[in-house]
Amino acid sequence: MSAAQDPTALVQALLREDLRGQSAYGAPQLDVPVRLNTNENSYDVPDDVVDAVTDAVARTARHLNRYPDREFVALRSALASYLTGQTGVTLTAEQVWAANGSNEVLQHLVQAFGGPGRTALGFTPAYSMHPIIARTMGTTWVDGLRGAPSGTFDLTPGSAAEQVRRHRPHVVFLCSPNNPTGTALGLDVVRAVLDAAPTSLVVVDEAYAEFARPGTPSAVTLLEDHPLLVVTRTMSKAFALAGARVGYLAGAAELLDALRLVRLPYHLSDPTQAVALAALEHHPSLLRTVEAIKEQRDRIVAELDTLGYPPVPSDANFVLFGGLADAPSTWRALLDAGVLVRDVGLPGYLRVTAGTPAETDAFLAAVSGLPDSHRTSTPTARTSRQEEPA
Amino acid sequence: MSAAQDPTALVQALLREDLRGQSAYGAPQLDVPVRLNTNENSYDVPDDVVDAVTDAVARTARHLNRYPDREFVALRSALASYLTGQTGVTLTAEQVWAANGSNEVLQHLVQAFGGPGRTALGFTPAYSMHPIIARTMGTTWVDGLRGAPSGTFDLTPGSAAEQVRRHRPHVVFLCSPNNPTGTALGLDVVRAVLDAAPTSLVVVDEAYAEFARPGTPSAVTLLEDHPLLVVTRTMSKAFALAGARVGYLAGAAELLDALRLVRLPYHLSDPTQAVALAALEHHPSLLRTVEAIKEQRDRIVAELDTLGYPPVPSDANFVLFGGLADAPSTWRALLDAGVLVRDVGLPGYLRVTAGTPAETDAFLAAVSGLPDSHRTSTPTARTSRQEEPA
Repeated sequence: MSAAQDPTALVQALLREDLRGQSAYGAPQLDVPVRLNTNENSYDVPDDVVDAVTDAVARTARHLNRYPDREFVALRSALASYLTGQTGVTLTAEQVWAANGSNEVLQHLVQAFGGPGRTALGFTPAYSMHPIIARTMGTTWVDGLRGAPSGTFDLTPGSAAEQVRRHRPHVVFLCSPNNPTGTALGLDVVRAVLDAAPTSLVVVDEAYAEFARPGTPSAVTLLEDHPLLVVTRTMSKAFALAGARVGYLAGAAELLDALRLVRLPYHLSDPTQAVALAALEHHPSLLRTVEAIKEQRDRIVAELDTLGYPPVPSDANFVLFGGLADAPSTWRALLDAGVLVRDVGLPGYLRVTAGTPAETDAFLAAVSGLPDSHRTSTPTARTSRQEEPA
Repeated sequence: MSAAQDPTALVQALLREDLRGQSAYGAPQLDVPVRLNTNENSYDVPDDVVDAVTDAVARTARHLNRYPDREFVALRSALASYLTGQTGVTLTAEQVWAANGSNEVLQHLVQAFGGPGRTALGFTPAYSMHPIIARTMGTTWVDGLRGAPSGTFDLTPGSAAEQVRRHRPHVVFLCSPNNPTGTALGLDVVRAVLDAAPTSLVVVDEAYAEFARPGTPSAVTLLEDHPLLVVTRTMSKAFALAGARVGYLAGAAELLDALRLVRLPYHLSDPTQAVALAALEHHPSLLRTVEAIKEQRDRIVAELDTLGYPPVPSDANFVLFGGLADAPSTWRALLDAGVLVRDVGLPGYLRVTAGTPAETDAFLAAVSGLPDSHRTSTPTARTSRQEEPA
């Protein structure tokens, strides 16, 4: 093979300029006893849902020779019903959209309303896929700021509105409960952004909404008066269906029509639609784990505080904790102890998923076993932040 | 609601400029007795595959709480084995990529190697999603020309190479067998394009390859010497799995690495991987319908020729036929007779899928029943084009 045919050189020369030299996204998929790195639901799917999912796919299998319902009407109706029950806001199928994971939902939004010559703003640290999806769609990304890493990563209405006015983005990403920090946003922040950006798309990513502490309202309650607001959700977390890849959003029917211009036809397979429908029919059974996970989350928060690793208040199924002298070496030490957590790239912080009691035991034992050198300060008997109002 | 809040106006004002006023892609999904409009495989999935698919999903259901294998290694291996068997070219998992339908495979390619400021060229009429995917990814589309609509839509090596040299596209789409015209390309055309565009991505879309007439070679045989050549395939047609949404491609491992930069993480669900794997294990059973469909295809070609609607030679599971005074009114007349075919927007032509013998009967009866006014000329006893060498 001649030098001119060197595959790597040829591919790099042809690759989109802004992608050259980049590496692919991806949390390590390691075979470790305790995997608490991707905020999965640690509980297996319960028997009744396993049966329902299997039956549903069995019913579609005979006719897989046909394309699926391109408009996934039954699934949109079921998602609308679920969301109506969960938020108290009446929604119809026309106000719901779905795709292969909330990542694809977000991609549809960016593809329709972002792109080259356009700007998207998010308040970092937030979900790492927001800037990745924006950029792979050619959108200019602006890193907005949360409060300095003070331990809570607060975002105030005034700061959010000021940053939006300054950058005038076409798309604004909010994340509530915020990943990786864990805390839900007050609706005052969402309202301030909507007021500051009346002609921009405002995306509130509520992937972890079902885990929020009592009294946390959903931005779904603001949809009626804001046609450019969308709220994204997922079945990967509380619903324990990360493997099924189903994300969705609620928004104005007029806005959803724009997504039909960019989605690939028949983007949701028959098995995907069948699995999601079966799961939604059995959602009380699937969501039975949510309270147990919240208990473990609150336990992690309380214990880490005592152990001298200050946690951020969490409304999610994970906890961000700080006080680390060197996060990568603590990540490695925990992995050596058989516990995989997530280094989200925030100096001094790591993120851990709240799973089963046994997983929490293993994680807390591993943290307790860390030499003092992992901490920036000695533990103090502080009041848990978790007991402060969100 | 004030005028400023009119949802349609707000959405249109924010929509990407090049998408404004467009309408969404979509063949009509109509409830008609005989549906021959989307080149589905008309045969139900056979019992053994229904059982295998159901069992496979049942095995994954318990652990849907976990994210799927992001690298879908088992599926890539199985696809590589199948393609090796089908083409005689030894391929490994590292040379195979897959996504939710070949549309998503094509989107990954355009996203990595096309985009704003870049150009893609296809030879129309060809698969209508090629320009749509290019444009929704911001790529400039150039309509290359096939031979004038002479009844065969030939593309010669010289013409293809000349057009490629003239437009210098970053991405070239070839389609073999070509949709909607039906005829496979000779490898001389593919070679001519590769020679004319040594630093461009050359995509050969072989969605219908399994239906090709004997002796039609796959462009997979050219992969070894051409690192920027990729061959896309699908499980939607011969495999009778349109509802499962699985497309794939073969290409250089170095090129596939670029797709990892743009694909969404975990883009293939566990059920999708499980269904595809089960189907591949049973591929002799699934592909048993291919010969029967080819018989119907050849029957349609022969009969349409006799009826005075000249067909284009077909290597696919569909036939494009011409001689129509007004294709939209013939489409309507066939629909009124209970047969849904496809108006692909080519004046004087319609496309019909080859399905079961009963479906062919219904289609041919409907065509026979058309008033003479639908034809541009009276039928003649010509030699079937189908018997000419491809």
